[in-house]
Amino acid sequence: MNTQSISASIIGAAGYSGAELLRILRRHPHVRVKRLFAASNAGKHVADVLPQLRGSYDCSFETYKPELTDGSDIVFLALPSGEAMHIVPELLARNLRVIDLGGDFRLRDPKLYEQYYTHVHAAPDSLLSAVYGLPEWNRAKIAEARLVANPGCYPTSVILPLAPLLRAKIIAELGIIANSLSGVSGAGRSSSAEMSFAEVNESVRPYKVGVHQHIPEIEQTLGDLSGMSSAVTFIPHLLPITRGILSSIATTLVRPTSRDEVMSIFRSAYKGCPFVRILEGTPEIKNVVQTNFIDIGFSLYERGNQLLLFSTIDNLVKGAAGQAVQNMNLMFGFNETEGLM
Amino acid sequence: MNTQSISASIIGAAGYSGAELLRILRRHPHVRVKRLFAASNAGKHVADVLPQLRGSYDCSFETYKPELTDGSDIVFLALPSGEAMHIVPELLARNLRVIDLGGDFRLRDPKLYEQYYTHVHAAPDSLLSAVYGLPEWNRAKIAEARLVANPGCYPTSVILPLAPLLRAKIIAELGIIANSLSGVSGAGRSSSAEMSFAEVNESVRPYKVGVHQHIPEIEQTLGDLSGMSSAVTFIPHLLPITRGILSSIATTLVRPTSRDEVMSIFRSAYKGCPFVRILEGTPEIKNVVQTNFIDIGFSLYERGNQLLLFSTIDNLVKGAAGQAVQNMNLMFGFNETEGLM
Amino acid sequence: MNTQSISASIIGAAGYSGAELLRILRRHPHVRVKRLFAASNAGKHVADVLPQLRGSYDCSFETYKPELTDGSDIVFLALPSGEAMHIVPELLARNLRVIDLGGDFRLRDPKLYEQYYTHVHAAPDSLLSAVYGLPEWNRAKIAEARLVANPGCYPTSVILPLAPLLRAKIIAELGIIANSLSGVSGAGRSSSAEMSFAEVNESVRPYKVGVHQHIPEIEQTLGDLSGMSSAVTFIPHLLPITRGILSSIATTLVRPTSRDEVMSIFRSAYKGCPFVRILEGTPEIKNVVQTNFIDIGFSLYERGNQLLLFSTIDNLVKGAAGQAVQNMNLMFGFNETEGLM
Amino acid sequence: MNTQSISASIIGAAGYSGAELLRILRRHPHVRVKRLFAASNAGKHVADVLPQLRGSYDCSFETYKPELTDGSDIVFLALPSGEAMHIVPELLARNLRVIDLGGDFRLRDPKLYEQYYTHVHAAPDSLLSAVYGLPEWNRAKIAEARLVANPGCYPTSVILPLAPLLRAKIIAELGIIANSLSGVSGAGRSSSAEMSFAEVNESVRPYKVGVHQHIPEIEQTLGDLSGMSSAVTFIPHLLPITRGILSSIATTLVRPTSRDEVMSIFRSAYKGCPFVRILEGTPEIKNVVQTNFIDIGFSLYERGNQLLLFSTIDNLVKGAAGQAVQNMNLMFGFNETEGLM
Repeated sequence: MNTQSISASIIGAAGYSGAELLRILRRHPHVRVKRLFAASNAGKHVADVLPQLRGSYDCSFETYKPELTDGSDIVFLALPSGEAMHIVPELLARNLRVIDLGGDFRLRDPKLYEQYYTHVHAAPDSLLSAVYGLPEWNRAKIAEARLVANPGCYPTSVILPLAPLLRAKIIAELGIIANSLSGVSGAGRSSSAEMSFAEVNESVRPYKVGVHQHIPEIEQTLGDLSGMSSAVTFIPHLLPITRGILSSIATTLVRPTSRDEVMSIFRSAYKGCPFVRILEGTPEIKNVVQTNFIDIGFSLYERGNQLLLFSTIDNLVKGAAGQAVQNMNLMFGFNETEGLM
Repeated sequence: MNTQSISASIIGAAGYSGAELLRILRRHPHVRVKRLFAASNAGKHVADVLPQLRGSYDCSFETYKPELTDGSDIVFLALPSGEAMHIVPELLARNLRVIDLGGDFRLRDPKLYEQYYTHVHAAPDSLLSAVYGLPEWNRAKIAEARLVANPGCYPTSVILPLAPLLRAKIIAELGIIANSLSGVSGAGRSSSAEMSFAEVNESVRPYKVGVHQHIPEIEQTLGDLSGMSSAVTFIPHLLPITRGILSSIATTLVRPTSRDEVMSIFRSAYKGCPFVRILEGTPEIKNVVQTNFIDIGFSLYERGNQLLLFSTIDNLVKGAAGQAVQNMNLMFGFNETEGLM
Repeated sequence: MNTQSISASIIGAAGYSGAELLRILRRHPHVRVKRLFAASNAGKHVADVLPQLRGSYDCSFETYKPELTDGSDIVFLALPSGEAMHIVPELLARNLRVIDLGGDFRLRDPKLYEQYYTHVHAAPDSLLSAVYGLPEWNRAKIAEARLVANPGCYPTSVILPLAPLLRAKIIAELGIIANSLSGVSGAGRSSSAEMSFAEVNESVRPYKVGVHQHIPEIEQTLGDLSGMSSAVTFIPHLLPITRGILSSIATTLVRPTSRDEVMSIFRSAYKGCPFVRILEGTPEIKNVVQTNFIDIGFSLYERGNQLLLFSTIDNLVKGAAGQAVQNMNLMFGFNETEGLM
Repeated sequence: MNTQSISASIIGAAGYSGAELLRILRRHPHVRVKRLFAASNAGKHVADVLPQLRGSYDCSFETYKPELTDGSDIVFLALPSGEAMHIVPELLARNLRVIDLGGDFRLRDPKLYEQYYTHVHAAPDSLLSAVYGLPEWNRAKIAEARLVANPGCYPTSVILPLAPLLRAKIIAELGIIANSLSGVSGAGRSSSAEMSFAEVNESVRPYKVGVHQHIPEIEQTLGDLSGMSSAVTFIPHLLPITRGILSSIATTLVRPTSRDEVMSIFRSAYKGCPFVRILEGTPEIKNVVQTNFIDIGFSLYERGNQLLLFSTIDNLVKGAAGQAVQNMNLMFGFNETEGLM
């Protein structure tokens, strides 16, 4: 294991994912946070923008300039979609290693990107060099990667329970229904009336049905992992909680199976994966909040030859900053759990 | 329209559904609340048990005895399952009209009742005489009924969006996936640790997957209304809100259709139904809380020949006490919306 | 009692207080809602802006023009502070009766207004003609008023428990500490990041300490009612709930007293006040939500010759729209509780 | 600094404070958790009782027996009041060092204990040997202590802002009003109906006014620290959040002062205290949740010669398990922040 220290900088450090990165890196024994870049908060002290970090970081946010990343070993980008693609090429050109927590480098096909993100991709050449940062399935490639596209929160929660079963050819690749529920921090720091407390509290609503940008990410990755072209009906909902995602996924069995067989497929697939917990029962969001775990449970639905899957993650940790640190650990040869347990 | 007044009594008046009945009946111009029965709260003043009703009801809860219902025109039962079946026969024998808000008289088949409610049915003879109190589909029978089985909260939210489409034979009767999310008041007043604030808050959990007692109720009713034997995979979840249900239902289209055609099926089915609102978009729980409305929205999921349905209700109103009053209005010839708008 | 019908229009009908007015007036037997004015929502149908009212109001919001109020008997204004003062004079000139739910006409002294609202008052002449709309203390004047200044939510919750005790000279007029907690709807519909769900949820914060605009309103009114110059240290806090205020008020007794004497002072002061409930114990917010009640409780703090007062209201009902309808009922000779029970 | 490792056992490890201790100790580099004792959960695996800790502790809860603590260097007790007093003497006799997170050893006067805890103290002899574990004021004594009485959550939040000002004789020791708001985890794991989600959500209530067991703890400690006999009117409220306390404290200035002077008193008092953050503005609960910080802010209330103090803590961390670990660090010569940053 590597025990040397590295320097990390963050672009977009004042948003929810950036703040979570700061919270995690604070206790990482091998990382020194070098520079923090922010846009509207540039010039302000960390403690004034993120009061929960007062006393942990005595520095200010700066306006990003490429040359300010000199001396960093890795740069994290935690930006709204469409911004990282203008910055990543110049970071790679400076020979930095990069982890993008946004969606700009997750889809290989720039046309698909344009369709779902509703703007043209500005750096299509970098798309093919990006490694999808799902450590449980891409550990070796991530270790070598210059550019890691950190997975989306919903895709993490949907892909990890489905992948082993599709690979085992025990469930049908079509007709998968993924009903996902997310806390509001998944939408980033927001000043829209529709994300105000009085509008979100004591309610739930589906949103972006059929057009969510995580649909092609889920299907591309499941295709990569299973070798089959999957179709997932993805239905996202907004929950009145701050953090956490629950995905309830209905699949069709292609042949009769037993609880033990399913358990065995999961256990075998995720052996040696420190952040995947396979449960006997069904998971609850509260058990994974503030952790990098994904909890996976399942239920054979007797009367319908169906297998129901359930997963929970913290959207800001395993769904964003925690998984990014997990990827960084792999890229630099640190213990995979360093800073995350 | 009937403009005379009637007398109503409530058995189980101190629970959440009973309290909601009291809240609604307080402003019903044709109903006088006669007697309120409760078990552990018998002898206590309404204002001490239900402080929100202080000043509205100046009386005390009593221990139920059959003869105390004399002089009532109707008796509502709002009891845990397994209790109403011991009381309803004697109420019917006294020539009272009865609305049971619990589950004891919803399933025609006592074997199914025993399987899902896990105790033997004590009054199987009354099962066949009960009318399922879903006014939008059973208006005429309810008007004549002596015993109305008020629908469950989840079934109300699942059946109303599905029934018109099954009858129109536009969706398949099999492979329906209903993901339902409910606020905690659906479980009744609870003193279990797992329903405590600290356990429910900032979390969501699936529960009773595959064994929930509302499964046979949904399938029996959809069979009655569509003439086909439906299979609904029903996945209930507990939400950290007090009131409200959102059901997200995935169905398979049997032939291509258009948004307009679906809208037209819904509009035609629910013409003249004052509490069904068909939306252009998707519904949110907060818009129906404290009302007797069900909001229904839908989405054609382009890539999967699927039709996604969404519905929201207040589980204590359209899912319990409000629907019970709607049924009472029909039974006594009052305007269907009396007390509910 | 008047049993004729009147026409009411609302300026600012799309905000939280406006929507609550619409919810209440919908079931008022003597009021016909005539015109609904809104600014950014002008031209939109009520059901699209306030989906919870779909089916109750089939009309659209309009841009306010003075002549469009012709034919109205009363106009409610539910606007951010500083807007009503530009409109009220022309409404009064058209001989309309007016209830302003905002703060523009509550303070008699335009200098105090300027200090706390941080802009100059545009209609100082109307200030003196306004009647402070606290029905429990100003019933006769409200009945005759052309312009009613509807009280603020916090002042309603602080003044009602204090006034009888100050008048009875049982507590000191100085050194009163009012610690008030409010749900977020008190701030109106907001699109600021600091009112977003993720910022408000699972937290509480004091705000505007020492500079809140309700401070002079509380002190002016307590002075009017008691004849003494009171000093109230008012500390507002933001709660992670949608509706409701709890005020915890510490006062100093000027002489020994008994629980019975305090109870007797309250009962006598609020005899005949249908919306004031004096409790034996302490109040909870949830018991008054969606009602026009104020619940008042108190506690003699043995060791400190102190009397602690507690009150709860729904800030949108007794603290805004409900109290406005109560005032309207008085102005037009309707039963004081019409539409509110 | 000590860099050796110690063994710790916990009695009452399955409750909220015990679980929080486990969460913190998991990342303490010098502590090995030896045995976990629980009552009703004895025999169950940690992962089944505390699913959030699955993968972190692979052991089961045991029934406490004195001899099972052999080999431990320290024993934490996290029990309901009245239980620790029966166990602590035998632990001390076995020469173990002990930290009691409950209230049994905080009051020196057994009569006061009996009055507020409503049962007789079983180990009055140990009362005098206990050191009150408030590290910011008792660092030296804690380092030597055999038995540390870990402070209550409310007292921690009330004493830390008041103590420096009382010692500086800038505020009056009488007439202090402390309004404290606490999340529900402060009450421990509960199965009472009044702590159920539906009863706590969307509400706030004062409780135990004038009789809360933390009143004598606050006054005894302030007396010890200031040399004056203080009187604090303490008004606790229950908030609909899981974790966190906000205390809003009104005090009377004994002479004119400036913002700078107050700031200087605080800074000087808490220099070298890593967990006390003095703010320019007012604190919010969310900034301290999951941390061992106390945030303190204040406001000079111009018109009333008052100084208002505000503090926030996480009741389970600085208010319980975090402060206990801070005490343990002092007792064993570890860095005070070890495991807590």
